[in-house]
Amino acid sequence: MTAVDAPGLNGPSVDGAVALPGPRSTVDLNSDLGEGFGRWSLGDDEAILQLVTSANVACGFHAGDPSTLRRVCARAAERGVGIGAQVSYRDLAGFGRRFIAMDPEELVDEVIYQIAALDGFARIAGSRVTYVKPHGALYNAAAGDPEIAEAIAGAVRTYDPSIAVLGLAGSHLVREARSAGLTAVPEAFADRAYTAEGLLVSRREPGAVLHDPELIAARCVRIATESTVEAVDGTTIAVEARSICVHGDTDGAVAIAQAVRRALEGAGVELRPFTAGPA
Amino acid sequence: MTAVDAPGLNGPSVDGAVALPGPRSTVDLNSDLGEGFGRWSLGDDEAILQLVTSANVACGFHAGDPSTLRRVCARAAERGVGIGAQVSYRDLAGFGRRFIAMDPEELVDEVIYQIAALDGFARIAGSRVTYVKPHGALYNAAAGDPEIAEAIAGAVRTYDPSIAVLGLAGSHLVREARSAGLTAVPEAFADRAYTAEGLLVSRREPGAVLHDPELIAARCVRIATESTVEAVDGTTIAVEARSICVHGDTDGAVAIAQAVRRALEGAGVELRPFTAGPA
Amino acid sequence: MTAVDAPGLNGPSVDGAVALPGPRSTVDLNSDLGEGFGRWSLGDDEAILQLVTSANVACGFHAGDPSTLRRVCARAAERGVGIGAQVSYRDLAGFGRRFIAMDPEELVDEVIYQIAALDGFARIAGSRVTYVKPHGALYNAAAGDPEIAEAIAGAVRTYDPSIAVLGLAGSHLVREARSAGLTAVPEAFADRAYTAEGLLVSRREPGAVLHDPELIAARCVRIATESTVEAVDGTTIAVEARSICVHGDTDGAVAIAQAVRRALEGAGVELRPFTAGPA
Amino acid sequence: MTAVDAPGLNGPSVDGAVALPGPRSTVDLNSDLGEGFGRWSLGDDEAILQLVTSANVACGFHAGDPSTLRRVCARAAERGVGIGAQVSYRDLAGFGRRFIAMDPEELVDEVIYQIAALDGFARIAGSRVTYVKPHGALYNAAAGDPEIAEAIAGAVRTYDPSIAVLGLAGSHLVREARSAGLTAVPEAFADRAYTAEGLLVSRREPGAVLHDPELIAARCVRIATESTVEAVDGTTIAVEARSICVHGDTDGAVAIAQAVRRALEGAGVELRPFTAGPA
Repeated sequence: MTAVDAPGLNGPSVDGAVALPGPRSTVDLNSDLGEGFGRWSLGDDEAILQLVTSANVACGFHAGDPSTLRRVCARAAERGVGIGAQVSYRDLAGFGRRFIAMDPEELVDEVIYQIAALDGFARIAGSRVTYVKPHGALYNAAAGDPEIAEAIAGAVRTYDPSIAVLGLAGSHLVREARSAGLTAVPEAFADRAYTAEGLLVSRREPGAVLHDPELIAARCVRIATESTVEAVDGTTIAVEARSICVHGDTDGAVAIAQAVRRALEGAGVELRPFTAGPA
Repeated sequence: MTAVDAPGLNGPSVDGAVALPGPRSTVDLNSDLGEGFGRWSLGDDEAILQLVTSANVACGFHAGDPSTLRRVCARAAERGVGIGAQVSYRDLAGFGRRFIAMDPEELVDEVIYQIAALDGFARIAGSRVTYVKPHGALYNAAAGDPEIAEAIAGAVRTYDPSIAVLGLAGSHLVREARSAGLTAVPEAFADRAYTAEGLLVSRREPGAVLHDPELIAARCVRIATESTVEAVDGTTIAVEARSICVHGDTDGAVAIAQAVRRALEGAGVELRPFTAGPA
Repeated sequence: MTAVDAPGLNGPSVDGAVALPGPRSTVDLNSDLGEGFGRWSLGDDEAILQLVTSANVACGFHAGDPSTLRRVCARAAERGVGIGAQVSYRDLAGFGRRFIAMDPEELVDEVIYQIAALDGFARIAGSRVTYVKPHGALYNAAAGDPEIAEAIAGAVRTYDPSIAVLGLAGSHLVREARSAGLTAVPEAFADRAYTAEGLLVSRREPGAVLHDPELIAARCVRIATESTVEAVDGTTIAVEARSICVHGDTDGAVAIAQAVRRALEGAGVELRPFTAGPA
Repeated sequence: MTAVDAPGLNGPSVDGAVALPGPRSTVDLNSDLGEGFGRWSLGDDEAILQLVTSANVACGFHAGDPSTLRRVCARAAERGVGIGAQVSYRDLAGFGRRFIAMDPEELVDEVIYQIAALDGFARIAGSRVTYVKPHGALYNAAAGDPEIAEAIAGAVRTYDPSIAVLGLAGSHLVREARSAGLTAVPEAFADRAYTAEGLLVSRREPGAVLHDPELIAARCVRIATESTVEAVDGTTIAVEARSICVHGDTDGAVAIAQAVRRALEGAGVELRPFTAGPA
């Protein structure tokens, strides 16, 4: 990932990534985009694209009609925002949020299909798909199931081994991507509570999702500059993340993303797509 | 049946292509492939792939699940068969055979999506999508409607201007593809009757579709070597075609394709993907 | 603006329906509902259901997941709102707004499937599908093409001849429904401009869609009480309608529907589902 | 579900059903039908409909376009074949063979939608949907997961409590259907091997699926007349079934169904839809 020879403000990271030391840290902000479908829209793509550095663009299987994909890719390319393929189970009715017990070989092919389709729009916008981030149920399945993680990593490697994989810090997906020789980028979630073990608190638990923009922003600064976060029990835990996910489709999404960006910039953190090399 | 070795029968072609004179002509044989979907299969892809030189591969919108696309692209690449994107209206229920009144700009994007998705599988097989042939209702619409033809040509040019367009000889699609600076390849149909004006006899008319393999094969030889065919009224008409379409999903499809190939080879016609340059 | 209590203004209607004379007129208000799909929502079904008397409920082909259909049917039944099947072409990607050239026999079967599916939810809510209103491109096609109109009327008659058909006043759909022995209910559009010939001004023309709630409401009162409307050229034309369509998914939809309902009630017009017999 | 007071050739059944004693037994033969989709066909519906007494008709979610459903229902009604709704996960790409982790409440609604849609075609054919049999992954999920079984039973009870549920003998689905006050009909599989515990041998094991028509037929006779079958270890086990499933889409399906029917008739077993009352 990045070779950083400067000694240690930060300790060794959970996932092998090492935060850049010195007066300036850098972090990537990613968000899901292009999640409408035909008549239906979701979130404010235009506003979010002005705040993030990486766009997880839907590929048509859970959302994302071709004209939306083209428009989002064009706007992302114009702004220097990285384009990622937000691959999903084939499930418009369930928005990709339902686990589907697929044959891993078929999953590989479905992922390749989606990356390639989106890459077409990235290319004609003068950019490329530079990373893959699974969506919804596939994200969770790839975090917890090595076979599914391996299928996704295999699809990426087969399509283009220079494409990175963005996944939950500490997940099987990050591990399998590395085993496959790919660049794995661990991410943290701006608006989610963490357990003392560094896992996300289940959405079924109270307090799992944070809503206060300033609190969320402050946590992001801490993740970016100290690689730590306060867990639900009050302890401080290490959260090594090269990217922070902000949601684009919730109430107040834009306000949260604005607060996060403002706070990070105010703290001297450089916002930069992870797929760009160090300055 | 057909005079093969007579020099000089072929004049300048209708569509600007010039048949090669002398002892050897060349022609391409194309067929639709990959038209199953999940549990459902259609035609004998494996057998047809051993007979044709260009494979019009479904892209998932009227047929073609990703695993099928991958397999067909891999086998085509192994055998040196050209890979074409058989783009379609989004219509699994109607197998792409129903005209859909789409916004042309959306059509452009839907075509790009499909080409790019298939190109992913062609690339990982070590090949590329080298041409686009619209399927079913989109083929007919692009033949007769300049706006739709322009949309398809525009999609191809936007995605990759080195990709050719395969269409009905004399169609708007061939014309618009040329206007867009693309290579347009006119094709003839092995098993269809022609009117004295050089159009296909409507499938609703008796005798529109031929079934006798030997008769079909003889017509193909004449198309390939003389650029003519006998029309339904007995007159001889010019049919300039760099490719001949054989169907893969009808009863007796394989037998017909075998007869066609055998007859062409027997007549000294070289079978070669049109996308390869002349020897 | 409108004279309400003047007796005898209403002559015989264009479509054979006769407006009720005397101190009270009645009219039905219909709106499209249930047009979300899974994660995507559209319009404010709950608010609109409190304003209309007939709900055109999506059936799953252009929009409408089963849980949404169930919920809308249950709420409509609770409120005494009539339940209509808003049948459509199978086209989630195009929201049913694209004409699809289908075999009429297949169209019949697709319409039956949709009516029956929705009727299941109407029945379990203690109600029934009491009318059919085609959606989008199918509405327009059925208005102008007798063969398509006949297919829809045939589907309704086959499924249940007691089900009414709601269509554009003067359309082929209304005509074919009557020929088939069905109850045909002509409708007017609250927010659309009319030509001097009584047709809707094309949406491509300026001024085709009205946005001022009070103006729209006043026109509705006049339609309900006088069966006339002012055309774009300033002339007064007859518009016989037993139902008025208010849109549910546009900006300001709820405000317009509220203004329409308030004005109609203020003018002494009784709002009642057309499918109920006269008091 | 039938109370049989004649004493005992058969002991108490696993599922509470008791085989009819005496010179004539009765059994139902069921098979999956209507599993094509548009251009794609599967199995020989016409031939199978002449052999079975109950038709599990696809409802459009894993297969089954409306015109196919209508035709199969019409032919089934003509022949006195019972019509069952073969409800499925929404998964055309996977033919309903992939488990989808759905919210149970949404599953209830998806099942109601499918039953109702098919019931429309059954009604217009002069028949009714008289039972529900889940398809593929939903069949397996409902057999082993009480929550999913309860969702299906709940959907049936909500739609029409006179509709029976056809499921694997001994399954949660049979149990939950009975708890819901529904008629539950246990079935056996003609061409599947059983373990000594009365479970189906996994398809992954060698010998799981039988192919010899005469052997399969002989097992069916024994199931119908003795309520026993020989397990893979050679022991004799009780298999109480009021219906036997024969497959319609495998190689040799028709030949197997013919052999089964011939053997049952030869053994004096009456073939009758389970949904008809006793003679």
